[in-house]
Amino acid sequence: MSAGRPGQPRRLLAEYVGTLLLVTVVVGSGVMAATLAPGDAGLRLLANSVATMLALAVIILILGPVSGAHLNPVVTFADWWLHRRDPDSRTLAEAAGYVGAQMLGAISGAVLANLMFGLPAVSWSATARAAPHLWLGEAVATGGLVLVVFALVRTHRTHYAPAAVGAYIGAAYWFTSSTSFANPAVTVGRSFTDTFAGISPASVPGFLAVQIVGAAAGLGLVAVLYPRPRVVTGGTAAIEPVPLRSRS
Amino acid sequence: MSAGRPGQPRRLLAEYVGTLLLVTVVVGSGVMAATLAPGDAGLRLLANSVATMLALAVIILILGPVSGAHLNPVVTFADWWLHRRDPDSRTLAEAAGYVGAQMLGAISGAVLANLMFGLPAVSWSATARAAPHLWLGEAVATGGLVLVVFALVRTHRTHYAPAAVGAYIGAAYWFTSSTSFANPAVTVGRSFTDTFAGISPASVPGFLAVQIVGAAAGLGLVAVLYPRPRVVTGGTAAIEPVPLRSRS
Amino acid sequence: MSAGRPGQPRRLLAEYVGTLLLVTVVVGSGVMAATLAPGDAGLRLLANSVATMLALAVIILILGPVSGAHLNPVVTFADWWLHRRDPDSRTLAEAAGYVGAQMLGAISGAVLANLMFGLPAVSWSATARAAPHLWLGEAVATGGLVLVVFALVRTHRTHYAPAAVGAYIGAAYWFTSSTSFANPAVTVGRSFTDTFAGISPASVPGFLAVQIVGAAAGLGLVAVLYPRPRVVTGGTAAIEPVPLRSRS
Amino acid sequence: MSAGRPGQPRRLLAEYVGTLLLVTVVVGSGVMAATLAPGDAGLRLLANSVATMLALAVIILILGPVSGAHLNPVVTFADWWLHRRDPDSRTLAEAAGYVGAQMLGAISGAVLANLMFGLPAVSWSATARAAPHLWLGEAVATGGLVLVVFALVRTHRTHYAPAAVGAYIGAAYWFTSSTSFANPAVTVGRSFTDTFAGISPASVPGFLAVQIVGAAAGLGLVAVLYPRPRVVTGGTAAIEPVPLRSRS
Repeated sequence: MSAGRPGQPRRLLAEYVGTLLLVTVVVGSGVMAATLAPGDAGLRLLANSVATMLALAVIILILGPVSGAHLNPVVTFADWWLHRRDPDSRTLAEAAGYVGAQMLGAISGAVLANLMFGLPAVSWSATARAAPHLWLGEAVATGGLVLVVFALVRTHRTHYAPAAVGAYIGAAYWFTSSTSFANPAVTVGRSFTDTFAGISPASVPGFLAVQIVGAAAGLGLVAVLYPRPRVVTGGTAAIEPVPLRSRS
Repeated sequence: MSAGRPGQPRRLLAEYVGTLLLVTVVVGSGVMAATLAPGDAGLRLLANSVATMLALAVIILILGPVSGAHLNPVVTFADWWLHRRDPDSRTLAEAAGYVGAQMLGAISGAVLANLMFGLPAVSWSATARAAPHLWLGEAVATGGLVLVVFALVRTHRTHYAPAAVGAYIGAAYWFTSSTSFANPAVTVGRSFTDTFAGISPASVPGFLAVQIVGAAAGLGLVAVLYPRPRVVTGGTAAIEPVPLRSRS
Repeated sequence: MSAGRPGQPRRLLAEYVGTLLLVTVVVGSGVMAATLAPGDAGLRLLANSVATMLALAVIILILGPVSGAHLNPVVTFADWWLHRRDPDSRTLAEAAGYVGAQMLGAISGAVLANLMFGLPAVSWSATARAAPHLWLGEAVATGGLVLVVFALVRTHRTHYAPAAVGAYIGAAYWFTSSTSFANPAVTVGRSFTDTFAGISPASVPGFLAVQIVGAAAGLGLVAVLYPRPRVVTGGTAAIEPVPLRSRS
Repeated sequence: MSAGRPGQPRRLLAEYVGTLLLVTVVVGSGVMAATLAPGDAGLRLLANSVATMLALAVIILILGPVSGAHLNPVVTFADWWLHRRDPDSRTLAEAAGYVGAQMLGAISGAVLANLMFGLPAVSWSATARAAPHLWLGEAVATGGLVLVVFALVRTHRTHYAPAAVGAYIGAAYWFTSSTSFANPAVTVGRSFTDTFAGISPASVPGFLAVQIVGAAAGLGLVAVLYPRPRVVTGGTAAIEPVPLRSRS
C-alpha cells in the first residue's frame, strides 16, 4: 500500500471519525443552544445551523483526502451507483463498509455529545417528526444535497465541496420544514439523544424512506443536468468522471 | 451537441431548477423564521437573509457551468445588452427563453415552499410593499446587483460570482429599505405565498418598474467604471469580454 | 490611456462610488436593524456588523481592480507613505484627490441611506461618542486595520484583501469599545444621519485624531513585522513591494 | 538574515502580537456582547463566537508567513514533536520561546481589552469552570483543533488554515460544553479579566491538564489518519512533511 492511497481500514476510520464529529456537533450545539436560549426557538436553530455548517465544512476539508468524506450513506450509495461501471470503482461491499462505519460513528457521536453535557450516555429521543409535509421537506433536502455534491463531482470542482456542502446544509436547516437531516446515519444517531436535535426512533423509518426517494430524484436531476459524455471507441471523452473519493 | 457545451433545453432546465430552488429558500426560510421567532422581526430577517445568501451562492456555483446561473431576468437582459454585438452572443429569443424558465421556476418554488410547510399550494400575498422610499431602495438594490455581476464579468473573475452575489444579497436584505428583491422573477414568485416573504400582486408592477430603472443605472456605472477596450482593426484588444454564460 | 490602466478620473469615481456604498450599508443596515429590533441592542449590532462585513468585502472585490478600493483616507495616506520613494508611486496630490472622493462619497452615502428609509436627507447625529476608553478602542481598531491591509500588501497576497478586511471589520464592531469606525471619511459621513450608526459632529474630531494615532502605530508594526528588503546595488531584492493599487 | 526568512525575534514578536489580538477579541467581544445583550445568553455566545472566528482567521492569515501563527502552546509543542527528527526542525528552546511570547501576549490582550472597555487593567475572574463534563468537552475541543491543524499540514494544504481553524473554533464554542478554550495561553490570559469570557485562576490548572490530554489524543489520530511515508534509502518519499512554520 503506497503512502498516497489510503487503504480501506484507514478510510473506514476516517468515515467513523468524521460522522462521529458531525453528530457530536449537531447534538452538542443543539444542547448548548437550548441551555442558553431556552425561550428563543429562532436563536436556537440559528446557533445550531451555523455551528453545523462550519464544522461540516471543516470535517469534509480534512477527511476528504483520506476517504472522500462521504459521512452519509446516501452519498456513498449514490457514488457507487454513478461509478459502478468504472474500471476501478468502489465495490458494493466497500460501500457497505462505509455505511457501517458511518452508522457506528453517528451513534458514537450522539453518545459523546450526551456525555460532554453531563447527560446519560443514551436517552431515546421523544421528539416525533412524522407528517407528510415534513417528509416532503426531507425529500427535498436530500435531493438537493445529492444535486450539490454530484454537480461538483461531474464538473471537476470537488475542491469546493467543503464550503458548498456546509453552506447548503446551513441553509437547508431553515428552508426545509424538516430542518434537513438528509443523512440516514445522522438520523439514526440523533435518535440516541433526547435533546434539541433528537428524533424519536418511531419517526426514523419514515425519514429514511423519504431520504431514499429524495436521493433518487436528485440523481435523476444530476443525470439530466450533468450528463456523462459517451466514450467513443478509439476516441477520448471530453469530460472524465471524477470519483468522489479523489476529492481533495 | 458536444458534452462540454450544454444545449438550450439543458440550460433552460438549469434556469428553471435554479430559480425554483432560490424562491423555495427565500419563502421557506421565511416561513420557518416566522414560525420559530414570531415576536422577533430582527431575528426573522437575520435567518431569512443568511439562509438566502448561503443557498444562492451554492445554486450559482452548481448551475453556473450549465446555464450561467442568471436566475434573474435583469441579469439575462443586461447580459444580452452588453454582448449583443459579439459574434456568438445569445439572441434575444434565447434570452426570452431564459426569462420564461425563470418565471416558471420562481412560481414553482413558491408552491413547493408552501407545500413543504403544510400550507395551500397558492395563497396570494396580502403584504403591500408600495412607497417611494421602498422603490428607491429597490432601485438601489437592483443597480448594485448589476454592478457586482458585471464588474466580475468585465474583470474576468466570474469564479468569485457565487460568493460575491450571495454576500451582496445577504447584505442588501439589510441595507435597502425594500429588503432587496432585485429580481423580477423572484418578485412574481413571491406574490404566490401569503407568508413572511410575500408581496401582494398589486405591489408587483411597481417593484418591476424600479428594478428596470435600477438595472439601467447599474449598467451605466458598469460602462463607465469597466469600459470595454476598443478593438483596433488589425490589432488585439487588451481585455476580452467574458460572456456571463461561461462563468465557471 | 490604455484600457488596462484606469486613469485618475475613473479611479476617483471608483473611490466615490465605493465609499458611498459602504456608508449606505453601514447607515442603512443600522436603520433597518433599529426598526426591526427596537428593544434588542445585541441583535442590532449583529445585523449591522454582518451586513457591513459582507458588503465591504464585495465592494473591495469589485473596485479593487479600478482604484485599489482604499475607501479610507487612512489607507490612502499609509499607502502613499509606504511607497513614497517608489519610482511610479502615487503623488501626494493624487492621494489628496482620493481623500476628497472618499469624503464626498461618504456624505452621499449617508444621504442616500436617509432617503431610502424615508428620513430627511440630512439630520445631524446626536449620538455623543467621546470618552478615553472609546478613543483607545478606536485607535486599536484603526491600527489593526492598517496592519491587516499592509501585511497582505507586503506578503503579496492582496487577493485575500476583500475577505480579510471584511472579516476584520466584522469582528472589530464587537471587540473594540468604539464599534470600530476606523475610517475618517466614514466617520464624517456618519455624522450626517441621526440614526443607529450616527456620531455627533462634536465627537468627530476626537475620533479622527485617534484614528491617526492608531494608524501610525499600525504602520510601525508593519515596518517591524514585514520589513522591506534593502535593494543591494546590482542585486535583486527577494521581496518586491506591491503597491496597493495593483490589488486585484 | 535574508529578507525572506524571518529571524527568531521577529517570529516571537508575531506570536506575541497575534496572541494579544486573539485574547483582545475573545475578551472584548465578550464584554460588548454582555453589555448589549445582558439578558440573552444565547445571543452573547453567538456574537462572541462569530467575532472570534472572524478575527482568528485574519490573524492567522497575516501572521502565518512570519511565525506560522501558532498562537497556542499546544500547536507549538505538537509541531515540535511531529517534526523533531527533521533536519531543520525547530529546537525545543525555540518552541519554549514561542510559548513564552504567547503567554505574555495573552495576558497583554486581556489587559488591553479591559482598558478598552473602561475596566481595571486586571481583575481576576470569578467564573469557576470545573466539572468532569466540562473537562471532557475541553479535551475534545483541543484534540479536534490538533486534528484540524495537522491534517492540513500533512496534506500540504496549510493555505486553508486561516479559514479552517477559524471555522472550527467558531463551531466549537457551541458544540463543546466548555465553549472550547483549547489553548493554554488563552486560558491563562482569560483568568485576568472578570468578564463574560473569564475563567477563575483556580479552574485554570484543570483546563490546562485536559488540554494536554486532548492534544495527545489528537496527535494519535493524526498519526493514524495521516501517516508519514517511510523514506526508503536511496528513494524519494511520496509525501514530504510540511513544517507548520511555512504556512503561507
